[in-house]
Amino acid sequence: MADFNEIAKQFVAHYYTTFDTDRKSLAPLYREGSMLTFQSDQLMGAGAITEKLASLPFAKVVHKYDRTDAQPTPNGILIVVAGQLLVDDGEQPLSYTQTFLLAQDAAGSYYVQNDIFNLVVF
Amino acid sequence: MADFNEIAKQFVAHYYTTFDTDRKSLAPLYREGSMLTFQSDQLMGAGAITEKLASLPFAKVVHKYDRTDAQPTPNGILIVVAGQLLVDDGEQPLSYTQTFLLAQDAAGSYYVQNDIFNLVVF
Repeated sequence: MADFNEIAKQFVAHYYTTFDTDRKSLAPLYREGSMLTFQSDQLMGAGAITEKLASLPFAKVVHKYDRTDAQPTPNGILIVVAGQLLVDDGEQPLSYTQTFLLAQDAAGSYYVQNDIFNLVVF
Repeated sequence: MADFNEIAKQFVAHYYTTFDTDRKSLAPLYREGSMLTFQSDQLMGAGAITEKLASLPFAKVVHKYDRTDAQPTPNGILIVVAGQLLVDDGEQPLSYTQTFLLAQDAAGSYYVQNDIFNLVVF
C-alpha cells in the first residue's frame, strides 16, 4: 500500500475543497454501496448521498480541519477528521467530527465506502 | 450479517464496562494486527495496545457515551462513539470521540481491527 497518511491527507483536502466550492461534485467519491450517516440520517448510494448534501440548508460553507488521523485497513484507509465549519458567513464556527472508511476499487481508485458525520454538541 | 446496530450496541457497552472496571482485560478484543491511535500515539498489536491503556495516568475512569453511530462494512462494522469521561472522581468531564472498525475472524467473532481515540478540545 502507498503511504496511507499521504493518501488520507490528499483525500481530506480534496473532499473539503470540493464540498466548499460545489458539493454536488462529491458524487464520484461515492459508489452504489456507499453509506452516509449525517446527524443520524442514514443514506445509501452516491445519488441519495449527493442529494442529501445538496439539500443542506446553507449556500456557503467553509470547513477547517484541525486534526486528521488515519490508519490502514485490510482494503483501504480509515480516516477520522475533527474540525470546524462556518456556514453562510456566520461568525460562530460549529465543531464537527467526520469518519471516512475509504475502499479501493478493482482499478485501485479510492472511494468512500462509509461516512459518518456529526456536529459536536457542547 | 446479524443486526449491526445491535452488535455495535453490545460491543460498546462491553468495551466501556471492561475499560472502566479492569482495562487490562480489553486484550482479547484486539489481535496482532490491530491498530490504536490514542491522541496521536500509534500502537499495533493487542500487547502494545493493552500496555498503553494500562499506562494511562488515572486509577479510576467512567465513560458515558451519548451517541453511537454504526454502519456495516464489507467485513465488519464501523462504529463512532461520542461521549464523556470522568477520571479519578474529578468533576470536570472530558468529551471524547472514538472510532472502532470491527472485523470478523474466521470463527465469526468480532474484534477491533482499528481504533482511533481523541479527546475533544474546546
